Amino acid sequence: MARPRPLSGFPEWLPPARAVERHLIGRLARVFELHGFVEIETRAVEPLSDLLRKGETSKEVYVLRRLQEVERTGLDAKTLGLHFDLTVPLARYVLQNAGQLDFPFKRYQIQKVWRGERPQEGRFREFVQADLDVIGLGQLPFHYEVELPLIMAEALAQLGVGDFRVLVNNRKVAEGFYRLIGLEQPDQIGAVSRWIDKLDKVGPAGVAEGLAAEGLSPAQVRAALDLAAISGADPAAVVASVRRLAAAVGAQAAADAAGPAPDAAARDASAGRALLDQGLAELGGLLEAARRRAAAAVVADLKIARGLDYYTGSVYETVWVGQESLGSVCSGGRYDSLASVGGQTYPGVGLSIGVSRLVSRVLALGLLEPSRLTPAAVLVAVADEADRATSDDAAARLRARGIAAEVAPAAAKFGKQLKYADKRGIPFVWFPGAADGGGDQVKDLRSGEQTDADADVWRPPPADLEVGFGRPAAGVDAATRIHSRAT
Amino acid sequence: MARPRPLSGFPEWLPPARAVERHLIGRLARVFELHGFVEIETRAVEPLSDLLRKGETSKEVYVLRRLQEVERTGLDAKTLGLHFDLTVPLARYVLQNAGQLDFPFKRYQIQKVWRGERPQEGRFREFVQADLDVIGLGQLPFHYEVELPLIMAEALAQLGVGDFRVLVNNRKVAEGFYRLIGLEQPDQIGAVSRWIDKLDKVGPAGVAEGLAAEGLSPAQVRAALDLAAISGADPAAVVASVRRLAAAVGAQAAADAAGPAPDAAARDASAGRALLDQGLAELGGLLEAARRRAAAAVVADLKIARGLDYYTGSVYETVWVGQESLGSVCSGGRYDSLASVGGQTYPGVGLSIGVSRLVSRVLALGLLEPSRLTPAAVLVAVADEADRATSDDAAARLRARGIAAEVAPAAAKFGKQLKYADKRGIPFVWFPGAADGGGDQVKDLRSGEQTDADADVWRPPPADLEVGFGRPAAGVDAATRIHSRAT
Repeated sequence: MARPRPLSGFPEWLPPARAVERHLIGRLARVFELHGFVEIETRAVEPLSDLLRKGETSKEVYVLRRLQEVERTGLDAKTLGLHFDLTVPLARYVLQNAGQLDFPFKRYQIQKVWRGERPQEGRFREFVQADLDVIGLGQLPFHYEVELPLIMAEALAQLGVGDFRVLVNNRKVAEGFYRLIGLEQPDQIGAVSRWIDKLDKVGPAGVAEGLAAEGLSPAQVRAALDLAAISGADPAAVVASVRRLAAAVGAQAAADAAGPAPDAAARDASAGRALLDQGLAELGGLLEAARRRAAAAVVADLKIARGLDYYTGSVYETVWVGQESLGSVCSGGRYDSLASVGGQTYPGVGLSIGVSRLVSRVLALGLLEPSRLTPAAVLVAVADEADRATSDDAAARLRARGIAAEVAPAAAKFGKQLKYADKRGIPFVWFPGAADGGGDQVKDLRSGEQTDADADVWRPPPADLEVGFGRPAAGVDAATRIHSRAT
Repeated sequence: MARPRPLSGFPEWLPPARAVERHLIGRLARVFELHGFVEIETRAVEPLSDLLRKGETSKEVYVLRRLQEVERTGLDAKTLGLHFDLTVPLARYVLQNAGQLDFPFKRYQIQKVWRGERPQEGRFREFVQADLDVIGLGQLPFHYEVELPLIMAEALAQLGVGDFRVLVNNRKVAEGFYRLIGLEQPDQIGAVSRWIDKLDKVGPAGVAEGLAAEGLSPAQVRAALDLAAISGADPAAVVASVRRLAAAVGAQAAADAAGPAPDAAARDASAGRALLDQGLAELGGLLEAARRRAAAAVVADLKIARGLDYYTGSVYETVWVGQESLGSVCSGGRYDSLASVGGQTYPGVGLSIGVSRLVSRVLALGLLEPSRLTPAAVLVAVADEADRATSDDAAARLRARGIAAEVAPAAAKFGKQLKYADKRGIPFVWFPGAADGGGDQVKDLRSGEQTDADADVWRPPPADLEVGFGRPAAGVDAATRIHSRAT
């Protein structure tokens, strides 16, 4: 493939420039939050009728079409589509910018993707993915196949919503084993992988039927299903189980090879054995490292096949313990030929979290709730509209020290202003000039305590400085909800 | 307009749920960065040919079409388009969720938008906007028209890239004045606004010609241009200048009103005067507050018209001092009828920063550069591949205390590993077991000093903990660049 070129009008930054962009955006967001604005994100699309209401910009609107609806003849080389994952864009980004990137290139990317599918529970048409990949130049050491799933396990554990289990397998184990049992053609091996991938959906009987239809003998079908049934976290036990099975079917294969082309079959079995040995060493190594670093979070599961053809080594899926119905929330693997240009290859290993799927389940289960509805920790009361400047000044002094504060919308009765704060879970209300000597006072809405305070000195408890997140306690007022702090 | 409904497959969260989503995303990002992964963001679109390479997902691809290219007949009520600003989506979001939002609803939104324009310098087809708005229920006090541009001025100042000047005007001043000089029809007033908006582009002579073509008398043209020429930061002086001009043209109008319909003209002039008075009180109040809180950052400029019809009070544009060729980098105003459903109105005031335009200029001018190319503050060296676990463990202990660390990609010679860190600007290299007693050592690449260190205790200087941003110093190595810290 030729090196891709930038697309006019679609700016895209190299990592240092993107860091600058994020830094600037972070500064804007910080000021907005110091003033008590909440952040939202809206979907990328609106009904065309709404977009045309304004008139002026109508000719600039991009219309979305599912590929199926578009006449093939209406498409040309310049036709653009929205990305449906972050892997295709990453491959293109690496090829396009290879000369300016440092390898191994370790990047993450958390962004929306779009798929014109029929929406279902946990399946969206616009959703967020979080991708983590390492891309090498020409070669990529195996140790990254150990490192990446462990980082993902750590990231998922840090979410604080429950336990996750990374299920791992290795393509070399499967492919070596299939060759050992006499499957030779790559397309036959691919077909077996795709059937094994359906095991959870259609069950062993259905898969057996499918494999038989692909031309596998009853012994081959049994061997493939036996391999897929192996699982466990203990490296030695998993490796021993596979070796035991391989020895049994190997003996059978040797007996069968006394047939028409014994030499070719023996050669193939030998190549299969070598591949199997390499795969088992990798799988065992991954489980060893996982046991040392992340205890029970990583488990071998030899039915994990990952349908996509481009995986060449370790493959991963991840289940949320107790929420298995959600399917895999984080999947990926090792790939060697995803991106290449002019003979230079860029092998990689990476995983992708389905963030929207995860978030929608977290919300549906009510696992997390913000401690308040605004970034503001303080509401500065206004005694009189004519005196709003005094309240503005107090708020400005609090913000100058990083304390998010908003000023009451109107100089209503203080009771109404307290209610405004309480409804939003804002823990503190500031009263300029309320103290006897003309100084300010601050009221903690949870304890009811009101004390003298100086806007240049006073600080809320650290836990109240930022919005906290935790499991909502039923029946407890928003302002007093127990919440665990982000670390 | 009917209350909009959610669009199946395009999830969109209310503020508390969005806060949960951000919190979870933040936790993921934090772990990724602790492991030294950089973040990138790629454009939303890829050439269709690349998207179809994978095969499998082809039917799910959304194809992008400019509206102009699409047959009108091919569009129906369900046709979707990508948003070209964040105002249309906000109006829809507020109408859709009004029952679940707290008013005044203060939100910010920093997101990509798309416009199928011809790209030019500073004009993109995919770009980021940062929007800040307050939306009221039924009514919205004037003080927000003061607060919002001041927050934006503060946010822009915090960027640390130079000075910004917010130019303000008030639609009531302009409309009152136009009525006073005998312009009565709303469409005529709108046409005058649109011509005044072009003042910087076509010059006074061109605008005079345009206004004459709209049917304005030479005296009316002169009055409109005289009003547009008024500017200044001093509230009393600006108000006095407008009053002086209004008195002069008012006397003229009274003389003209001795014509065919004196009563109607007098009534209109009187309504115009009332509107002008209200507008001047608001404009003066805004300048007063700005002077008190933000010194010279806010200036009245009566040629600011903002072409869009929906503005009803204050209007704003913002220039980057010294980069005026960029045009307005932050614009907006007060609107009263952007969103309404079932007789309920949602007036608002807001401004929008053209983030991509700003960032591309910052990068082009080389104003900011990250202090290093990776979030990692420490590279943990690997002495021997067989002993990689020791290095992994040291890195894990550093990360457990919030110190981003990556482990060397290969057990190359230490000189090569030091070069790897230096090239990326990573300030520290960690050597497990390098100390005499078998303990670890850490080397500061800038000073060259290597000292004994414990991964459970050692801390880098606070300035090295996160990536810093500052003006690049020419000829100085990346690792030793002077940088100002984000606050």
